[in-house]
Amino acid sequence: MTDLNPEPVLPRALLFDVFGTVVDWRSSIAREVQAALASHSASVDSEAFADRWRALYQPAMSRVRSGKIEFVPLDKLHRENLDQVLAEFSVDHLSESEKVQLNLAWHKLDAWPDAAAGLERLKSRYIIGTLSNGNIALIVNMAKYAGLPWDVVPGAEVARAYKPQPQAYLGSAQALGLTPAECMLVAAHNDDLKVAAQCGFRTAFVERPFEHGPDQTTDRTADGDYDYEALDFVDLARQLRC
Amino acid sequence: MTDLNPEPVLPRALLFDVFGTVVDWRSSIAREVQAALASHSASVDSEAFADRWRALYQPAMSRVRSGKIEFVPLDKLHRENLDQVLAEFSVDHLSESEKVQLNLAWHKLDAWPDAAAGLERLKSRYIIGTLSNGNIALIVNMAKYAGLPWDVVPGAEVARAYKPQPQAYLGSAQALGLTPAECMLVAAHNDDLKVAAQCGFRTAFVERPFEHGPDQTTDRTADGDYDYEALDFVDLARQLRC
Repeated sequence: MTDLNPEPVLPRALLFDVFGTVVDWRSSIAREVQAALASHSASVDSEAFADRWRALYQPAMSRVRSGKIEFVPLDKLHRENLDQVLAEFSVDHLSESEKVQLNLAWHKLDAWPDAAAGLERLKSRYIIGTLSNGNIALIVNMAKYAGLPWDVVPGAEVARAYKPQPQAYLGSAQALGLTPAECMLVAAHNDDLKVAAQCGFRTAFVERPFEHGPDQTTDRTADGDYDYEALDFVDLARQLRC
Repeated sequence: MTDLNPEPVLPRALLFDVFGTVVDWRSSIAREVQAALASHSASVDSEAFADRWRALYQPAMSRVRSGKIEFVPLDKLHRENLDQVLAEFSVDHLSESEKVQLNLAWHKLDAWPDAAAGLERLKSRYIIGTLSNGNIALIVNMAKYAGLPWDVVPGAEVARAYKPQPQAYLGSAQALGLTPAECMLVAAHNDDLKVAAQCGFRTAFVERPFEHGPDQTTDRTADGDYDYEALDFVDLARQLRC
């Protein structure tokens, strides 16, 4: 009897988008912004500040992707964006060292509640790594902070390219000595997964309906034909028999 | 009362030399060579084969260090060296896929008995990473094989330079967003530690008196002024209060 739906060949490495997929950047950044600005008189909506800081993320990377500027680590782009947001919110009280410290808020993001436990299970059977636009230092400090047990942290800084440039995906697979088909991107973002699929990666969509807060409208559900769709990382581990 | 021997400031990251310091490459390679050649008629001294394969390691990297050839990952140099050693030992029976497989012997090296337990303890307080000439794929596959819990695997492929080029050390620190003084190289090799110290790293010598077999004459003891000298990784963890 022919199996019309054969089990897909399992990948060797699971590579994770990080911001939004593994960690709750919005709540964490809002918390750090609030703490940093608490001693100042200005009243700032810390979630609006976080949203605006994040909104400048794609335009900043576009300057690298287009070749307008050379590849620089995300920490540097975050800092330039921070200076702009501080100006927009009329915060002019912070010292240089306070700004340096606030920029490191991106190194201290809380994981979604299922993330560490799910990753531990997935790690028992697969290489687990990051495929993030975050630089190595950012991802490693975050891992120590949030207890994320990565085997390896490739991504933008190793591939010297920002997602969704194909080189970010292909260079990460290459660094692991794997073909794209041996890698699976795990992400909560449809756009990211579609480019990964075009690069030959396997794909897993994970629901993160509150990444952008309670009123999120984007990426609520999978809108592509992915290899896996999961409620969270523990559900993904179950589906991958870990 | 003045403390004449103040405790040195503790580093934030411990970066480990790998071949010889973390893993017993000689026994592991000899085992893989024996297994690969067992079905062939040629009688080969597998330890001599391992020693010769390793002996070609430095000359191969010299071609990169001198700028004679562009940076290539160690897997590629290992393969060129394997072809040479096979010829020297008059082994001409292996198929291409058998040679590819044998070259991956370097991804399956056994850790010294104290290594995984010592690293787990050190990881509780420090970022632990590799500062090896091994490429990312090699180090990650070895970590999965030998149970080595690295937080991050910088080194030659990230820095695009082979030790003892200073850029290998400096580029690894930079990738972690750390100053050299915030990094400590842990190695069983005096030469490696001396260059690291010149780069501003802290240093820890670990004894590995059998890396080159029972008659080893080199690197039996520390011959420099290092921050720490340890019998093994568990002893180092104890000294570092982990």
